Amino acid sequence: MAGLLSGLYGCRRSAGAEAGSGAFSAAGSGKLGVALVGLGKYSEEELAPALLETRACRLAGIVTGSPEKIGKWQRKYDIPDGNVYSYSDFDRIAENPDIDIVYVVLPNALHKEYTVRAAKAGKHVICEKPMAVSAAECEEMVAACKKAGKLLSIGYRMHFDPSTLLIRQLGENKTLGSFTSLTARDSQKMKSGQWRLDKALAGGGPLMDLGIYCVQASLYCAGELPVAVKARFGKIDDPEKFASVEQSIAFDLTFPSGLVAHCHSSYAEEENSLRIESDREWLEFSPAFSYSGLKGKTSQGKMNLPKVNQQALQMDDFARCVNEGTRSRVPGEMGLRDLKILEAIYEAAETGSEVKLKL
Amino acid sequence: MAGLLSGLYGCRRSAGAEAGSGAFSAAGSGKLGVALVGLGKYSEEELAPALLETRACRLAGIVTGSPEKIGKWQRKYDIPDGNVYSYSDFDRIAENPDIDIVYVVLPNALHKEYTVRAAKAGKHVICEKPMAVSAAECEEMVAACKKAGKLLSIGYRMHFDPSTLLIRQLGENKTLGSFTSLTARDSQKMKSGQWRLDKALAGGGPLMDLGIYCVQASLYCAGELPVAVKARFGKIDDPEKFASVEQSIAFDLTFPSGLVAHCHSSYAEEENSLRIESDREWLEFSPAFSYSGLKGKTSQGKMNLPKVNQQALQMDDFARCVNEGTRSRVPGEMGLRDLKILEAIYEAAETGSEVKLKL
Repeated sequence: MAGLLSGLYGCRRSAGAEAGSGAFSAAGSGKLGVALVGLGKYSEEELAPALLETRACRLAGIVTGSPEKIGKWQRKYDIPDGNVYSYSDFDRIAENPDIDIVYVVLPNALHKEYTVRAAKAGKHVICEKPMAVSAAECEEMVAACKKAGKLLSIGYRMHFDPSTLLIRQLGENKTLGSFTSLTARDSQKMKSGQWRLDKALAGGGPLMDLGIYCVQASLYCAGELPVAVKARFGKIDDPEKFASVEQSIAFDLTFPSGLVAHCHSSYAEEENSLRIESDREWLEFSPAFSYSGLKGKTSQGKMNLPKVNQQALQMDDFARCVNEGTRSRVPGEMGLRDLKILEAIYEAAETGSEVKLKL
Repeated sequence: MAGLLSGLYGCRRSAGAEAGSGAFSAAGSGKLGVALVGLGKYSEEELAPALLETRACRLAGIVTGSPEKIGKWQRKYDIPDGNVYSYSDFDRIAENPDIDIVYVVLPNALHKEYTVRAAKAGKHVICEKPMAVSAAECEEMVAACKKAGKLLSIGYRMHFDPSTLLIRQLGENKTLGSFTSLTARDSQKMKSGQWRLDKALAGGGPLMDLGIYCVQASLYCAGELPVAVKARFGKIDDPEKFASVEQSIAFDLTFPSGLVAHCHSSYAEEENSLRIESDREWLEFSPAFSYSGLKGKTSQGKMNLPKVNQQALQMDDFARCVNEGTRSRVPGEMGLRDLKILEAIYEAAETGSEVKLKL
């Protein structure tokens, strides 16, 4: 079975696969070692459990600034002392052959630094979304990984969900005709005190964190790049909470086909939906962007797509890319493209004028 | 709107699109002219109505050996006298600039002749499935279209259904892990007196007509080519009816991954289903291969995918290929590949031995 699986995942180290005894057999398991940089909620509740479900990856290391977390993680995931790093000694990871992939799960403003350091340490990188706090930073990250000859992928987990696989196919094939209407809304109430409300760490408010899902969905539904954007900030109800980032933002992306995607994102509401219409049919997901439990409907009725672990699929797919030397379907270049769009959306909201996009 | 549509379909003749007044505006509509060769049930009940729903094609001509049908078709679809052909004067179609695509909807044994004649007449060709009655004939058809510089596509309409688009993506992406089980069954009771029961015209029985859907589904689910086949004919209950073709056939296709697809096809039962399983999830369609009304289920519940017109999508996609000069996703080479598999299935059933496949 191990031979079969390593064959399917095209694993270069398949010779060792037979000797592997499980997800945490360390070197020789035939699986690529992943180090999580940042042990916040997403690492703890999503990525580490997902790594238990991957077939081509294993949780091999951790990088944290919170020493009190180390013991618990080491015990739970059988991580040897030599694979535990602080932010100051992170660069020593270059000497550790047990780590193949570094997954950056830090606040947005730190993405660039740790991606560049990981690449310089000779590691492939997955970086959470948004890729960074500016397009200029993204350029540096792409260049650093290119120079190091390492792959860079962005944590766009939706690309691994069956809903997205279906929508993209329907769009690319014009199965329902051209889409005539698209609405994407992603909002979550944000409690005070979180780094996501601090522009210096987050780069922006709900647009950076949630609106980016609406941007992504608009592009993969439309199957083309937007040419212009209009946007406006919503009113601020809590000036103290929203002192440095927007409370909400609405934006319209215009595509060459004529399609206009209407998007909305807020830190003071709960919204999670995607609706696309053609003159023949419609599809709707609500929730549309959750880790699990997506609910789909078409004009024909409920659409119960298969249940998956998006994060496990994403990491296994990246392992395949690393083993085969092929580019990820969600590469650094896509993250860069999206930051250019996010910057244009902010510019449109700040100036009140339509901003043209040349992507 | 016409400009927008022709842009989406990449239509070379878009300059004329604005002048077009509908599906049957003849030359100058910006749509490619299709001639149906053979006016049987599939042409009458499926293809001609589908052509009313296409955006890039129009029913421009008919070729028939039944003069009594001509008047009705001409009136219903506004077909001028000059675009009506018999089998004997079919080759004159070369001189008709109003016909871009010839769609061959004849009994299987005539596919080769009319595809080759159409290619020689300088027309692009869609040929119904099965492509021909032997792989050798398919080779001739591919060669003839290549020599004429014309595109050849096979009437594999399932490739345009959302169910297939989804299944292929799940398979290619290993979204549900590798498939561990696949069962495809396609059977229809066949009344006496039909050409499909005559080996000279059909090339074989339910395998040629219906089992080919099981072969196709096995390959696009597996995402790889089979390496071996086992098969056995079922018992014959009506020796007079099944004097020249099998009544039923069961066959197993073995894939490199280890997956074995279990398939069954008969002219004495009603079956229409596809079930795929991984160790994580399952999907089932029943009916799976109908023109419409497909019903899907997953381990999560009912899966109501959007409703489409498979034939209209297929013809519009072929028009796009013609206009862009790109190969169809269901090209002649795919039809040839499948005939090699069908021949191997018959050989396995006749000899009782496993037959290795080198595709």
